Parts: sequence; C-alpha cells; structure tokens
Amino acid sequence: MNVDGKHYRTIWLADDGRAVEIIDQTKLPHAFVTARLATLEDAARAITDMQVRGAPLIGAAAAYGICLALRDDPSDDRLAEAYDLLHATRPTGINLRWALDEMRSTLTPLPPDQRLAAAYRRAAEICDQDVAINQAIGEHGLPLIRELWQKKRRPDCLNILTHCNAGWLATVDWGTALAPIYKAHDAGIPVHVWVDETRPRSQGARLTAWELNHHGVPHTIIADNVGGHLMQHRRVDLCLVGTDRTTAQGDVCNKIGTYLKALAAHDNHVPFYVALPSPSIDWTIEDGIADIPIEQRDPAEMTDITGRTASGDVVTVTLTPPGSPVANYAFDVTPARYITAFITEKGVCPASREGLRGLFGGRSC
Amino acid sequence: MNVDGKHYRTIWLADDGRAVEIIDQTKLPHAFVTARLATLEDAARAITDMQVRGAPLIGAAAAYGICLALRDDPSDDRLAEAYDLLHATRPTGINLRWALDEMRSTLTPLPPDQRLAAAYRRAAEICDQDVAINQAIGEHGLPLIRELWQKKRRPDCLNILTHCNAGWLATVDWGTALAPIYKAHDAGIPVHVWVDETRPRSQGARLTAWELNHHGVPHTIIADNVGGHLMQHRRVDLCLVGTDRTTAQGDVCNKIGTYLKALAAHDNHVPFYVALPSPSIDWTIEDGIADIPIEQRDPAEMTDITGRTASGDVVTVTLTPPGSPVANYAFDVTPARYITAFITEKGVCPASREGLRGLFGGRSC
Repeated sequence: MNVDGKHYRTIWLADDGRAVEIIDQTKLPHAFVTARLATLEDAARAITDMQVRGAPLIGAAAAYGICLALRDDPSDDRLAEAYDLLHATRPTGINLRWALDEMRSTLTPLPPDQRLAAAYRRAAEICDQDVAINQAIGEHGLPLIRELWQKKRRPDCLNILTHCNAGWLATVDWGTALAPIYKAHDAGIPVHVWVDETRPRSQGARLTAWELNHHGVPHTIIADNVGGHLMQHRRVDLCLVGTDRTTAQGDVCNKIGTYLKALAAHDNHVPFYVALPSPSIDWTIEDGIADIPIEQRDPAEMTDITGRTASGDVVTVTLTPPGSPVANYAFDVTPARYITAFITEKGVCPASREGLRGLFGGRSC
Repeated sequence: MNVDGKHYRTIWLADDGRAVEIIDQTKLPHAFVTARLATLEDAARAITDMQVRGAPLIGAAAAYGICLALRDDPSDDRLAEAYDLLHATRPTGINLRWALDEMRSTLTPLPPDQRLAAAYRRAAEICDQDVAINQAIGEHGLPLIRELWQKKRRPDCLNILTHCNAGWLATVDWGTALAPIYKAHDAGIPVHVWVDETRPRSQGARLTAWELNHHGVPHTIIADNVGGHLMQHRRVDLCLVGTDRTTAQGDVCNKIGTYLKALAAHDNHVPFYVALPSPSIDWTIEDGIADIPIEQRDPAEMTDITGRTASGDVVTVTLTPPGSPVANYAFDVTPARYITAFITEKGVCPASREGLRGLFGGRSC
C-alpha cells in the first residue's frame, strides 16, 4: 500500500540484508514511524507490544524472528529456543504457530551452516505468500461485493461494516477483510465502510480509519456499540471481518466483539463474511469456544488512552476511576452458524468442516 | 447515596430555596464538583451538555428548569417557552416529556401568582417520587437476584452485567438497574458487576464504576465488546440495564449497545432484565425501532477523550486520525422478545403490552 505516495509493506528486510524493518503500529495514527529489529528479542518484543499485530503479520514477523535468532547461532538448541520464545508472545492467533512450524520444518533437516540463508529465503517466501493470499482473497471477495451492489442499486453506496483492523497493516500487504474492499473501491463500486472503533486498543479508529483514509475509501468511525442499531435500520449491507484462528468446523476467533456483530447480522439478515487466509485455520481444533485460549492483556490498554492534545503533543491519559479493576479479553469466538461464508485464497466456501475440507483438504496453503 | 461519608442526591434545592444544585457529572470520576443552576438556560444547558444525564434525572432537572423559568415571569407564554426549550434538549428519553407534562398540567390551571410555589412543590414531588420508585424497583429486583444466587450456590459470586449508568447518578437517588444490586449487596449476597465501559461517553467506566466503588460493590470494568465472550463462558448470571424509553409493546430504548448485549444474553440463555420506572413508558408508541427518534450527538464525544495524566492534570486528547468522519448514535432499541422481564416499581412483569397493562393499566406513576 502507499503512504503519502511511497509503497510500503508492513515488514521488510533492511539494507544490510539482515535486520528487519517494520512500521511501528503503536505510533499510528499520530505518527508514521518505522522501527528496526536486529535481534530475536527485538522481534518478540515487537509482537508482544503490538508494534506489529494482526495474525498474518505476526506470522511473518515471527518467521523473521527465527532468522534474527540464527544469525550468530544456527544450532538446533537456538532454533528451539527461538521457536518457544516467539510462540509464547501471543496465544490466540494461529498464524504464529503456522509460520514457526513452517520455519522449523524447513530448517531442521538442513546442516546448521545452511540454515541462515534458508531461513531468510523462507521468511521472504512467507511474506510473499501472504501478499498473494490476500490478493486472491480480494479477487474472490470482489464479485460478492459487486453482486450486493448490483442488487441494491441505490443511489448512495454499499455499506460494509468491519471490526478491528484486518487491512494491510494486519498483514504484509493488502489485508484480508479489507482486500475485497480495496478491490471494490478500485473497481468503481461506491463502497462506504463503517469502522468499528474496536476498544480497548481502538485498532479500527486508529489503524483501519488511517488505512482507508490513505486509500481514499469513504468511511465513518463508529463506537463498537453502534453496529446493531445500524443493522436494524438497514444501514449495513454486509459485514466483513478477519480471523485470528478458525477451527476445523468453521468457528472463528477474532478480535473481541466480533461475535456481537455476528449476532446482530444474523438477527437482521445481514450477510456476515469472514476473510480467511488458510494459514489462519487450526485443523487440530473443532469447538472454538471450548478450545481456543483467549488472550488477556494488560488492563492499562483499557484504562489508559493515548492521543493528541490540541497543541499536537501525544499524551496518555487515564479514563477510569482509581480502584476499579479491569478485565481485558482480546478475542472472542463466533460460532460457524452465524457466518454466511468464508472468503479464502481458493474461493468462497461455507463456514463448515465440509466447506473448509472441500477447498483445502485439511491442509493450509 | 454517600460520597465520602456525606449523603447526596444528584439534584437539590440550594440554600436560597430558589436555585438548584447538581453534581456536575461531566467532571466525574476525575473530580467531584457541584454546579448551581439559576436560570432556565442553565437547566437546559446542564441537560444538553450532560452535566445531568440519565432519563429519570433529566426529568427531574427539567421540572426544576420550569421552576427557574417562572421565577420572574409565571405567564402562560413563559411556561410554554420553557416547556419547548427544555423539551428540545434531548430527543430520546421520555421521562423528560413526562416530567414537563406533569409540570404543565399542574401549573396551567393555576393563576400565575400561585404558579411559582406550586412549581417548586411539584418538582420536589417528582424528585421524591423518583427516589420512591427506584427504592421499589430495588425491592422488587432483590428477590430475583437472591433466587439466582440460591440456584447458583457457587463459592464465588453472582455475576451481573450492566451497561451504561443506570445508577443513582442517572436518577435522583438509588438508580434503576443498580438499585436491586445495591439492595442485594447490602443484603449480603456476593454480587460482582461487569461494568460495560459504554463508549463513546464511557458512562460505565466513568460513572458506574465510580458509584460502585463508593458503595463498596465488587466490580470489573470491561470493554463493550467483552460481554458476549463472558456469556459464552458462563461468566454472566444475569444482565440488568435501564431504559430511556419503553414502548407500549415493551421495546426498550436504552444506551447504544444494549441491543447487542441482549442478543448475546438470548444466545446464551442468560436472563436479561430491564429496570423500568413507569415514567419511562411511552404509551403512545408501539414499535421502538420504527418510532423512537435516536439522538445523534457531537462526533467529538467519539474522537476526543478526557482523562488524567500521570501528573494529575485533566487533559483532552484526540484518538482518531484527522479526516475520518465519525457517527455518534446515542441509543438503540432492544425488541421486547429479547427481554426476560421488566422490574418496575409495582413489581416484575413480562416485557409485553399485556405485562405492562397488567401492572399500570396504560398510565404511568
């Protein structure tokens, strides 16, 4: 994607061919800042602190984390240590484990002196593959959006609600849920996006709005509470969200609050699509509610909010009264029955075991 | 309720017997400040700017607004002017119109020179009546909570989810949804309250948490996105919310996001109760979604957040990127079919026309 006329991915190799550079997403939308990751610990911290976030991008960053770990020591022990450290950074998204497994299965058979170069090659492939997957999701989602627009044919626009950020900032490029939206906008379909703020970290208001602004896609930020009201009043034509982990039976674990929007879509007969890159499928789990570990994050994400003052300073303020505890669950699970269909890199399929197996045969990518 | 050992209502007559004092709720939880309303315009501004908020308290403030208007001019014209100005302050809640109608029907038959004293008497009655209603709601809600606790009998506590602030700050005293919770806590039932933050104005995180803190009720603040996840995991035993307007068929208009929680409660078989003082019933409307005007408020409520810095200053910061539009709908409608029952001042009844008529016969208070 372009930022002020320059093309960026969210993660790339530095000029020295060894360090990795990222967009520091904790600084957006108030500042566009890149950061340099030189060590395994840098990569792990970037994931934990959410300088990089979004399941696909976390996977890509973890792959490069392995590369950084092997720079001085390509041994089996070091590989195992790096795997474990990176795997522990975020518990819910599954692309992280997928990418680490890919790296390990590529590197383990090789003699140690060949591992570093192979690691950088495989990490680059994982990034390129993510971009290709997202472009394909965009292509497969575009006809759905076009069809809804052709059915609607109102003079205004097609209203799409999205939650959190499943845009190019959540991936290496293009995004998952936003890829079809970018493609539709570029194809001249008058889309308008309702952007859920997505408390507590406000990735919708901070990141999705910033992305859509840069691409010129019309959008409106709303509180997470608003989507149901809009659907009751026929102001949402479809919902389109990402996924951090999808089970073999089609349950979707995504940013906390996704489930509530799926319920409202179901209650109001609004199509609810999930953009699903196959590395987000966890074939080992069936029941998402019972079996996916839900990350609990720092209460400060709820209590403290960072923004710009009128004079342009970036300041953090505390919203809540002292003495009130806070719980900060980061994800929830939307049962497959509330999902109209998955939009994957291989096409559109029902949100079910049969649907997923029909496209992927039980194997991601 | 007590604040640091001193009993307060949210609105009271000043020492001169003419001006009215309020707790300025825009300053909470960072400062406890009272404000003095001396004119009609002061009262209207206090409602519009949400120094006072909550449907019952808005009604009480409007009643005193009529008193302030008549201080210098008790004519029919002045009464009509005051009615119209106050009625226009907030469009959604119905207690406002109810209180204004009560004042007008009391005052219109009287000769002008008797109106001022009668106005202050009637405004005081409306306040006392609100307190009595809320105490009765508390008494009628207590057995429901006790029964759920006796059924559960787990060693931990009974988890109640509430949305926005329907506590004593939303009324003259006691609150609607929080009245049964205060009664249950005082009766020794180990209640724990999940406090929805309630963006954009965060009345849950700012006001409900502050109230519960002062009363010593255990509670945890959560993002508005979290309730569905908690219900899926049996961490919510009941939901209990207020109402700004309830239609004759039992649809409930309440703070935006209430509908989403009702859907999640329904999906997870969690009882969903609405604390309903009868002045919140609008007998003239059936279909809440079609017929209740939903207030749209200043986008700045979404984009700008006020809090304390580490050094204790209260500062406003902007969260969102420049150039992203914001929509700020303040209420939504929960259809009667998602409501387990109403807890009213006359007892508990089904959320239906028959239920409401059975208790009230089509007439409030």
